[in-house]
Amino acid sequence: MAKKELLYEGKAKSVYGTDNPDELIAVFRDDITAFNGEKKDQFSGKGVYNATVSAFFFSMLEEKGIKTHFIGMIDERTMLVSKLKMIPLEVIGRNRAAGSLVKKFPFENGQVLNPPLVVTDYKNDERGDPPICDDIIYALGLLTPEELKEVREMALKINKILFEFFDKLGLVFVDFKIEFGRLGDEIVLGDEISMDSMRLWDKETGESFDKDVYRFGKGDVMSAYGRVVEKIEEWKRQNI
Amino acid sequence: MAKKELLYEGKAKSVYGTDNPDELIAVFRDDITAFNGEKKDQFSGKGVYNATVSAFFFSMLEEKGIKTHFIGMIDERTMLVSKLKMIPLEVIGRNRAAGSLVKKFPFENGQVLNPPLVVTDYKNDERGDPPICDDIIYALGLLTPEELKEVREMALKINKILFEFFDKLGLVFVDFKIEFGRLGDEIVLGDEISMDSMRLWDKETGESFDKDVYRFGKGDVMSAYGRVVEKIEEWKRQNI
Ligand SMILES: Nc1ncnc2c1ncn2[C@@H]1O[C@H](COP(=O)(O)OP(=O)(O)O)[C@@H](O)[C@H]1O
Ligand SMILES: Nc1ncnc2c1ncn2[C@@H]1O[C@H](COP(=O)(O)OP(=O)(O)O)[C@@H](O)[C@H]1O
Ligand SMILES: [Mg+2]
Ligand SMILES: [Mg+2]
Repeated sequence: MAKKELLYEGKAKSVYGTDNPDELIAVFRDDITAFNGEKKDQFSGKGVYNATVSAFFFSMLEEKGIKTHFIGMIDERTMLVSKLKMIPLEVIGRNRAAGSLVKKFPFENGQVLNPPLVVTDYKNDERGDPPICDDIIYALGLLTPEELKEVREMALKINKILFEFFDKLGLVFVDFKIEFGRLGDEIVLGDEISMDSMRLWDKETGESFDKDVYRFGKGDVMSAYGRVVEKIEEWKRQNI
Repeated sequence: MAKKELLYEGKAKSVYGTDNPDELIAVFRDDITAFNGEKKDQFSGKGVYNATVSAFFFSMLEEKGIKTHFIGMIDERTMLVSKLKMIPLEVIGRNRAAGSLVKKFPFENGQVLNPPLVVTDYKNDERGDPPICDDIIYALGLLTPEELKEVREMALKINKILFEFFDKLGLVFVDFKIEFGRLGDEIVLGDEISMDSMRLWDKETGESFDKDVYRFGKGDVMSAYGRVVEKIEEWKRQNI
């Protein structure tokens, strides 16, 4: 499948049309940004890491009955996906309190959240991705109450699968952000599932293996991301 | 009932203990603030206006079956209320898009919201009253899902009563903020219902009769508030 016109250049991926009007090509670039684009860099190989991890999780989720946009890899940073009509929501799942939750509300950093939380931000860079409550989602016509319920249930199911997987790797799956879109009259998981869009802490030391390493200059982000990829490869060797 | 120790001095009211441990005295001061306390003033008589309007609405709501903290007036700016264990939420109802909703989301100013929205902010001045989604309300132990449902239903009922009332006065009840608290194992309406905590627009001209007059220097806030009090007095003369 060949790349055609560039449709959208996001902060970390470029999305291209293909010969098939129902399919898109997503190229995971080496760009990394934080704080709504205020901090920006490029790290050679970062796009490959995120594409690899995303592809691995999309396949795992598909096997467990979650519909995703993932079709296959074209090369190590290039993914073929079903074209979705994206829903402009960041669906956020949280197993531990961290980041903005701790800044805005009286939670301790690392506090266990059981049951896990699912909350939503309105995906809109100019508006700063504001938190959006259910009634506003309905009023903007983004989702019906039934659809939001379905999205929340999918997010919780995805969370459970990933939490249990990372646990086996010795990592705490702290929180994550996912995006959904419409494919016909179905709502399916789109975008990516990578170290850019989750928090992962070492179970023993609490060390970060995610974008916080970059956000807060906690060390070398490429070795952190690389460790996650290694751990996944190791798991694969032992389990497949 | 005599005022005893000052328990809390808020931005617009001072709350005192009484001889009865279950009752408090709320004095509506002449202070007015906006933008989380950044803008501050005093207008002689403003406290009386807000106390008068609050008392009027608490009585009206009680008659229609809504439990409130209101016991009675001690003088024209001083209210005797049941002592509540306040729930730190600002419960916001919206019949038209205005204010922060229009700033954060793609609504037109004045756009009709039907059904009306009910959303929540975490009441905490230091944290800037951030919007709070349902799962966070549960995780902080502020309300159970059943209680939040009850609070939302009370807010919608209050909204309907006030919307229909203001409509008869020629005013659009655009939006409002209310606070609830616990009295034993019941959740009841507390705080105030005044021009400080709602938006009211003239049905014909769109002119504001609420704190926006002060926030955005749209004219004389005391004549705006005074007009609402007059309209209510006029209605009383015709209806009671
Ligand atoms: N299957 C899909 N179909 C259409 N658009 C998609 C799909 N998956 C992801 N997208 C969108 O493509 C963009 C991916 O690029 P990204 O760099 O993540 O952008 P952004 O800066 O907006 O987050 C995002 O806007 C995302 O919502
Ligand atoms: N019935 C009640 N029992 C106890 N506290 C109350 C009651 N009604 C209102 N309050 C609280 O008293 C304070 C009223 O003062 P106010 O000037 O509105 O304060 P604030 O600046 O916190 O909004 C508020 O914090 C409010 O939550
Ligand atoms: Mg993105
Ligand atoms: Mg107040």
